[in-house]
Amino acid sequence: MHKTLIALAALLAASPALPQASAAIAAGKTKPSALAPNEIVAQAPQTDWTAIAASDLLVMDLAPDAKGKARRVVIQLMPAPFSQGWVGNIRKLAAARFWDGTAVNRVQDNYVVQWGDPDAEDKAKAKALPAGLATVPESGYETEVIREMVVDPNGFGDEGPPVPSIELLQKPDTYATTAFSRGWPVGIGSDKIGSESIWPVHCYGMVGVGRDMPPNTGTGAELYVVIGHAPRHLDRNIALVGRVVEGIEHLSSLPRGHGALGVYDLAQGDERTGIQSIRLGDEVKNLPSYEYLSTESQSFTKYADARANRRDDFFIRPAGGADICNIPVPVRRVK
Amino acid sequence: MHKTLIALAALLAASPALPQASAAIAAGKTKPSALAPNEIVAQAPQTDWTAIAASDLLVMDLAPDAKGKARRVVIQLMPAPFSQGWVGNIRKLAAARFWDGTAVNRVQDNYVVQWGDPDAEDKAKAKALPAGLATVPESGYETEVIREMVVDPNGFGDEGPPVPSIELLQKPDTYATTAFSRGWPVGIGSDKIGSESIWPVHCYGMVGVGRDMPPNTGTGAELYVVIGHAPRHLDRNIALVGRVVEGIEHLSSLPRGHGALGVYDLAQGDERTGIQSIRLGDEVKNLPSYEYLSTESQSFTKYADARANRRDDFFIRPAGGADICNIPVPVRRVK
Repeated sequence: MHKTLIALAALLAASPALPQASAAIAAGKTKPSALAPNEIVAQAPQTDWTAIAASDLLVMDLAPDAKGKARRVVIQLMPAPFSQGWVGNIRKLAAARFWDGTAVNRVQDNYVVQWGDPDAEDKAKAKALPAGLATVPESGYETEVIREMVVDPNGFGDEGPPVPSIELLQKPDTYATTAFSRGWPVGIGSDKIGSESIWPVHCYGMVGVGRDMPPNTGTGAELYVVIGHAPRHLDRNIALVGRVVEGIEHLSSLPRGHGALGVYDLAQGDERTGIQSIRLGDEVKNLPSYEYLSTESQSFTKYADARANRRDDFFIRPAGGADICNIPVPVRRVK
Repeated sequence: MHKTLIALAALLAASPALPQASAAIAAGKTKPSALAPNEIVAQAPQTDWTAIAASDLLVMDLAPDAKGKARRVVIQLMPAPFSQGWVGNIRKLAAARFWDGTAVNRVQDNYVVQWGDPDAEDKAKAKALPAGLATVPESGYETEVIREMVVDPNGFGDEGPPVPSIELLQKPDTYATTAFSRGWPVGIGSDKIGSESIWPVHCYGMVGVGRDMPPNTGTGAELYVVIGHAPRHLDRNIALVGRVVEGIEHLSSLPRGHGALGVYDLAQGDERTGIQSIRLGDEVKNLPSYEYLSTESQSFTKYADARANRRDDFFIRPAGGADICNIPVPVRRVK
């Protein structure tokens, strides 16, 4: 455990201005590529891909579009140790069919699409939540890097949550030191009591938990997805629970709402998009299998470097860096 | 002139890690605000707003939507000294009614919406461009800060282009030192010959010029708008010519294309959205007037600080920073 802390501190001290990918390349460990990022991904060996369990997918079927075409959105839930209190609630809500017959209620341009019970604010009409949902404290927005120091909000028991690995450190950005950990984009820093902590960040396509004013943290019944420039000011202020891995266009291209904050206002002619069902992936027949490019793989290191330093023919001047949200983790259907 | 260089260098050296807004607040010049950013904007005095000339607007009328509703997009063209070669071409193209009857041809999720002549690649069917369009060299992607050192790509004549002002320096981000200059988000750095240079950056809503492989820089006949996370790797690789100030939702909510790079593929059932007309604002009857919050004003300084440090009730942990694209310059209709 102590070693993990030292390793992290060393990483942070060693390369404050150099992305790890470029450091690896500078050290001659990885050869830079003139390929475009998508070409690097296409050429990655199968061993560099990590399967996503069907039980970690959330499958949302919207009402068909105006032409009668099906609209399915597939979300990957975050793994331990991130946000597990809320993820546990979401599993219960899906098992209870809570979202069936609910709707997309808010679409704010360059911000979020949000869904859940449209009558949630009206006690007389609100849909009952399933029993047994956890109330997760604000401390759950961050995870301590050192297991011994964890105030355990998520019920991992005596073992505490697994210690997250820091696989690929990036240049610090305006908000924090950032990295990839177990396939996810994260921020790294000190929490309020001075421990090293790690937290998922609000990139395009990330899924979060709507909430009321603090100290409310939301149950997970109200979810949103980022459809604009990364709203990183929300990091550590709202729980992130997953990311869309397929079908985000069915949400991002929905008409924007005319009410305050993009909430659909039926009086102004807005129409909600109905949700037929939301299920965990292992309950869905004939669901394809998905896999992501391991953020521990050499292919990902090359890909991240190519996102930061475009050497393919279209570019005349490589940027020399890329913010973490401009390096989306590749996800695909298993062939 | 020499003084301007010193001032810029001093700015860059003095506050590499502190946004100018916070520096002003730390120095007691500006009081921090617990208001939300939009509240600060709403309370800004009229003197902090700068009018946008109708002649600097580009008004795009799309074909009406499925319900017959009009769809108008209003774009503000970039002022001198930025990208003026392309902006000059765009004025000629609009005056020649070049875009009337063309279409939106590409919508790529989390990236761009692009429009122009759908037959541009087919010499037999391509629409003729108006005479007199400039061929702008790649050096036009950046502007030298010091007039004497400018290789004058944009035909400003003996005077050279006006020297841009650096009004509000931000924390350096992953890509560059950034600032606001004359109402626009810009990067600042050294060009290939070592001079200080300044360039507009690819934030959500920014409008750029589609081009072929370098050294082609595009004419301006093919335009795109950013509808996703800021693709900052395009900075200094493609010309930026403006930003959408109203109606971006008519573009960002269009169906995504099924062809490569989101190009509409009619064989796969995609349908292009027609463009009825694109006109310069001073040719459009009954166009509202628009104004932007001056990036030189104290209101903007407070607004930028509040974007970086949310102190309103919803937030439990201010971010302590904001990337330049997360501080959109407020634009509104004149009341």
